[in-house]
Amino acid sequence: MVNEGQQSGSGSSSSRSDGGSSSGSESSKDNSRCSTPVLDTDRHERLREKMRRRQEAGDRWFSLEFFPPRTANAAVNLISRFDRMGAGGPLFIDVTWHPAGDPGSDKETSSMIIANTAVNYCGLETILHMTCCNQTKDDITGHLQKAKRLGLKNIMALRGDPAGEEWEEEVDGFNHAVDLVKHIRSEFDDYFDICVAGYPKGHPEAESYEADLRHLKEKVFAGADFVITQLFFRPETFLKFMRDCQAIGITCPIIPGIFPIQGYHSLRQLVKLSKLEVPQEIKDVIEPIKDNDAAIRNYGVELAVSMCRELLDSGMVHGLHFYTLNREVATTEVLKRLGLWKEDPRRPLPWAVSAHPKRRVEDVRPIFWASRPKSYIYRTQEWDDFPNGRWGNSSSPAFGELKDYYLFYLKSKSPREELLKMWGEELTGEESVFEVFTCYITGEPNRNGYRVTCMPWNDDPLATETNLLKDQLEKVNRRGILTINSQPNINGKPSTDPIVGWGPSGGYVFQKAYLEFFTSSEIVTALLKVLKKYELRVNYHIVNVKGQNITNAPDLQPNAVTWGIFPGREIIQPTVVDPVSFLYWKDEAFALWIEQWAKLYEEESPSRMIIQYIHDNYYLVNLVDNDFPLENCLWQVVDDTFELLNSPTQ
Amino acid sequence: MVNEGQQSGSGSSSSRSDGGSSSGSESSKDNSRCSTPVLDTDRHERLREKMRRRQEAGDRWFSLEFFPPRTANAAVNLISRFDRMGAGGPLFIDVTWHPAGDPGSDKETSSMIIANTAVNYCGLETILHMTCCNQTKDDITGHLQKAKRLGLKNIMALRGDPAGEEWEEEVDGFNHAVDLVKHIRSEFDDYFDICVAGYPKGHPEAESYEADLRHLKEKVFAGADFVITQLFFRPETFLKFMRDCQAIGITCPIIPGIFPIQGYHSLRQLVKLSKLEVPQEIKDVIEPIKDNDAAIRNYGVELAVSMCRELLDSGMVHGLHFYTLNREVATTEVLKRLGLWKEDPRRPLPWAVSAHPKRRVEDVRPIFWASRPKSYIYRTQEWDDFPNGRWGNSSSPAFGELKDYYLFYLKSKSPREELLKMWGEELTGEESVFEVFTCYITGEPNRNGYRVTCMPWNDDPLATETNLLKDQLEKVNRRGILTINSQPNINGKPSTDPIVGWGPSGGYVFQKAYLEFFTSSEIVTALLKVLKKYELRVNYHIVNVKGQNITNAPDLQPNAVTWGIFPGREIIQPTVVDPVSFLYWKDEAFALWIEQWAKLYEEESPSRMIIQYIHDNYYLVNLVDNDFPLENCLWQVVDDTFELLNSPTQ
Repeated sequence: MVNEGQQSGSGSSSSRSDGGSSSGSESSKDNSRCSTPVLDTDRHERLREKMRRRQEAGDRWFSLEFFPPRTANAAVNLISRFDRMGAGGPLFIDVTWHPAGDPGSDKETSSMIIANTAVNYCGLETILHMTCCNQTKDDITGHLQKAKRLGLKNIMALRGDPAGEEWEEEVDGFNHAVDLVKHIRSEFDDYFDICVAGYPKGHPEAESYEADLRHLKEKVFAGADFVITQLFFRPETFLKFMRDCQAIGITCPIIPGIFPIQGYHSLRQLVKLSKLEVPQEIKDVIEPIKDNDAAIRNYGVELAVSMCRELLDSGMVHGLHFYTLNREVATTEVLKRLGLWKEDPRRPLPWAVSAHPKRRVEDVRPIFWASRPKSYIYRTQEWDDFPNGRWGNSSSPAFGELKDYYLFYLKSKSPREELLKMWGEELTGEESVFEVFTCYITGEPNRNGYRVTCMPWNDDPLATETNLLKDQLEKVNRRGILTINSQPNINGKPSTDPIVGWGPSGGYVFQKAYLEFFTSSEIVTALLKVLKKYELRVNYHIVNVKGQNITNAPDLQPNAVTWGIFPGREIIQPTVVDPVSFLYWKDEAFALWIEQWAKLYEEESPSRMIIQYIHDNYYLVNLVDNDFPLENCLWQVVDDTFELLNSPTQ
Repeated sequence: MVNEGQQSGSGSSSSRSDGGSSSGSESSKDNSRCSTPVLDTDRHERLREKMRRRQEAGDRWFSLEFFPPRTANAAVNLISRFDRMGAGGPLFIDVTWHPAGDPGSDKETSSMIIANTAVNYCGLETILHMTCCNQTKDDITGHLQKAKRLGLKNIMALRGDPAGEEWEEEVDGFNHAVDLVKHIRSEFDDYFDICVAGYPKGHPEAESYEADLRHLKEKVFAGADFVITQLFFRPETFLKFMRDCQAIGITCPIIPGIFPIQGYHSLRQLVKLSKLEVPQEIKDVIEPIKDNDAAIRNYGVELAVSMCRELLDSGMVHGLHFYTLNREVATTEVLKRLGLWKEDPRRPLPWAVSAHPKRRVEDVRPIFWASRPKSYIYRTQEWDDFPNGRWGNSSSPAFGELKDYYLFYLKSKSPREELLKMWGEELTGEESVFEVFTCYITGEPNRNGYRVTCMPWNDDPLATETNLLKDQLEKVNRRGILTINSQPNINGKPSTDPIVGWGPSGGYVFQKAYLEFFTSSEIVTALLKVLKKYELRVNYHIVNVKGQNITNAPDLQPNAVTWGIFPGREIIQPTVVDPVSFLYWKDEAFALWIEQWAKLYEEESPSRMIIQYIHDNYYLVNLVDNDFPLENCLWQVVDDTFELLNSPTQ
């Protein structure tokens, strides 16, 4: 909001009462027979309901504001930041509207697309800002329709900065935020939750503080659900504003905007834009240390923590909104010191759920994309129905093509130079590839002293759960069983288990052991002989890049490999090994060898040809041990395979 | 077929080739993504496919023929016989067509309704016979449409006995079975599997044995899928017939009709009807013992066993069709001695599946009707979709009314006098009702020396599984916790477990402990206090006849209480405690007090008023212990309740 000036308008007051407590259409009794166990009430509630429920429960919360990046690389970084800061548990994030940055376009840096990514790929409840001045009704309706289509459900309705000095109000135009609020309500009924801006010191362009309060009341009565305020420097500024609002009948939530001072220059720029005055006591501290960034940031954190404490202690404030300026450190520090940063080890499902409303019943996915969830979301974005209860219920098994591996939200966070250091400037044979896989598993530095923190199939370090299998994984990778996905068997651990738990408390979670790897045709030949002994116990799918496919799975049925049993609910089986999806995944998994690894090297170079050879000749194998109550037999299968390979008669 | 004379016709030979091996439309590849785990391939195959699969696998099978009963009481008995003989594993049963008994009507004794009951309520693959002579095309089409509507999938196409001596073939009429076969194929395409009759000695009205063979060939070429033969007395009669059929190109399955001689008079009558001659060697044995029923039956069993052995040993016979004459003993004996009677302890699901094609994906039911499955099927017969994977997927939660408790397939098998002996000629108070429940649980005789083998909520003796809880159940019933349904908790027993197992082998089955009972409001008051201690562990629903409903279930969600994990499949959860269905079940459960018990006594009699009092004042309670890996806590809940009731402060 910092960058989006706004003036409260003089529209006529509407008869619609404060929307803050109006009951959402989504929570009607009809939904009592909804087709999914309500794993996570959050998934089914609209933002205003979540806010109300938190307030009623006495839970304090926070939210984070970001602005759209200027470059595609910055967008990739911002998305990683969404993932990291999302882990702290914000109630929502919001993305500002940059009129100069073609905000409604399909550019990877547009406000619209960044908000879309936050909702769909990062699973964050998101508010998209939207300004209305200097825009036609059709433009605005088009933006709103697009936002709805992308699964965005919340709009921050703003006026925006008038272009130039000569701007004048247009008759019947969008002159004030209240016009946008009314337009949204008249064109989209109750679909969007609407947020508006409040000015604790009054809007700089308003006739008076009192007049500005009246404008805020108009916006709320026109249909806004809650208010986020402009930043301020003293807690009493907000608390007075809050009391004044209540006094004139504004009863919806009003969320204070918190700006942790992060540097001298950003503060000055902000003050200029927002036309706010920095109190003397702050200037007195900052001026002497203006060239010491760390000192200023420390002071900013102290100041913010103490102001937030005072706001929360007043009993009038339940949530805090942070102007992050797209930076992590200061805001995270403030949140941690306030005890609001909650990295909840409990997960509603073993995988991160998308916040797109179309996907809210989704509770089954194939295991293959476990480390590439954004790719899975991308490839299934055209589905009308998402699997729920059973994978078999998916009406559309067709996965979208994934031709552009440099699609920005799937792009590796690491630049080429770093990847070369991790995966080898020069490969000398298949064994050097085995080494890369092994180093990724062990976390040990490679021969050049670099740690391998990501792989083409996995952009993050090894999951805690996979760590349970580390020793075994290391052993097999050294021998050319190049693992890309695995899980241990679990026979009824509490759903609150910090490593493997998920879902509501009081439940039990289960897993079948799973192992997925690339390996040579020589090993596959021996493996197939060994698997005969395990025919009734182990299901396998073995496929090469040409699609030659060997399996013992009955009738292409999916095999549930992760499930949970919870009090008072139906059974949830969020992960399956689906033979049909495996063939779609196969294309992606093989392509990653070339797109992410081989292409690091010159064409015709020996390194590139080694990767190309593996791509052309190796098989992708997945194994499931169905006997989850017994000790995982998959390591024995691999041992038997090498024993067979090393036996003299072989 | 015994009672339905038939002559093979002279219709023109059709170009349609032998249907015996034509591929069913149901098994196409499209089904590979079907929405249910294929638990039991049988459920998805048509009869001719099942026959073919059994033959290919070298499995021998049998089938059973019944005729429709004359009275409603006889119908109730026949249905019990279907259940008992169905347990032996027939590939199918067939029901003859009684032209004199209004066979296509809705009478409870009609061929149509008996076949409907066999399919829908007993879950048996069923062939409905149909004769065509003396009937209009519209009559026949009407019958076939009705059969299809009721879920019948197989027709035995017969000519039937012409009415009177003067019968003459009608031009364009249905003069021969082949006309009916053609009509079915032209009007219903491939929907029905069609069976026709073969005469090992030639049809008595045929010009010659050879002419009759040619007529059979015409029927097969017109679209029949397999042949069942008239009875015969010597194995060589059938084997010659079979060879002669093959010689002229009849390649579909030909199933020998076996008639175990059960008595002197039934044999004579049969011979008269079928115009067959009894061989002298059989007459020689039977005549001297004609007044000794047991001796004749023993001889009949011996004869049938030896003939069946010879047929099976020939290698030409894979299945045997038995003319039961609606009797059990002789046929069951023959089947047991042949080793064909297979009471398979393995069940595809914990409850008996219906054979109606609409229900073939059904794999979830509420637990409440566990002992009244026919009532459940009846009350859900109008549903278009059946729950599959999840109860929540049921599109229609509306249960049909069950107003007529004397609906014949729900009627108690026991007559009023027997019920009075079991449940008490005269009740002296609530305690005498407690005694009836307790005797039903223990299997001990009541105070008048009669065993209580059924209850209004359970027409059969206690299930083996419930027996696991017998001691505990006895204890609580004595104290007025009147249990009508329960299951123990199970934490991963093999799916092949003889008592609690179900589903494919290699799997594991689980259960949450469940207890359902009627009890007084005094006990409910104490129970509710006790349940506070178990709030997070036990889900409860408590309701009285007026619908006052107390529950701690979240959001009316169903609670899965039985589930299974199988190799290479999705998870199956066939039983749920569904809060919405419970309120429908409640009406039925309370009404059974009045309809089945109170009405045994005179109006205004003290016995009737005692039952009426319980009906009006007791509560129906269900409890689920969600912590299935721990020891069942529900007994502790009951103990705590009585402790609270007996404590001096209470």
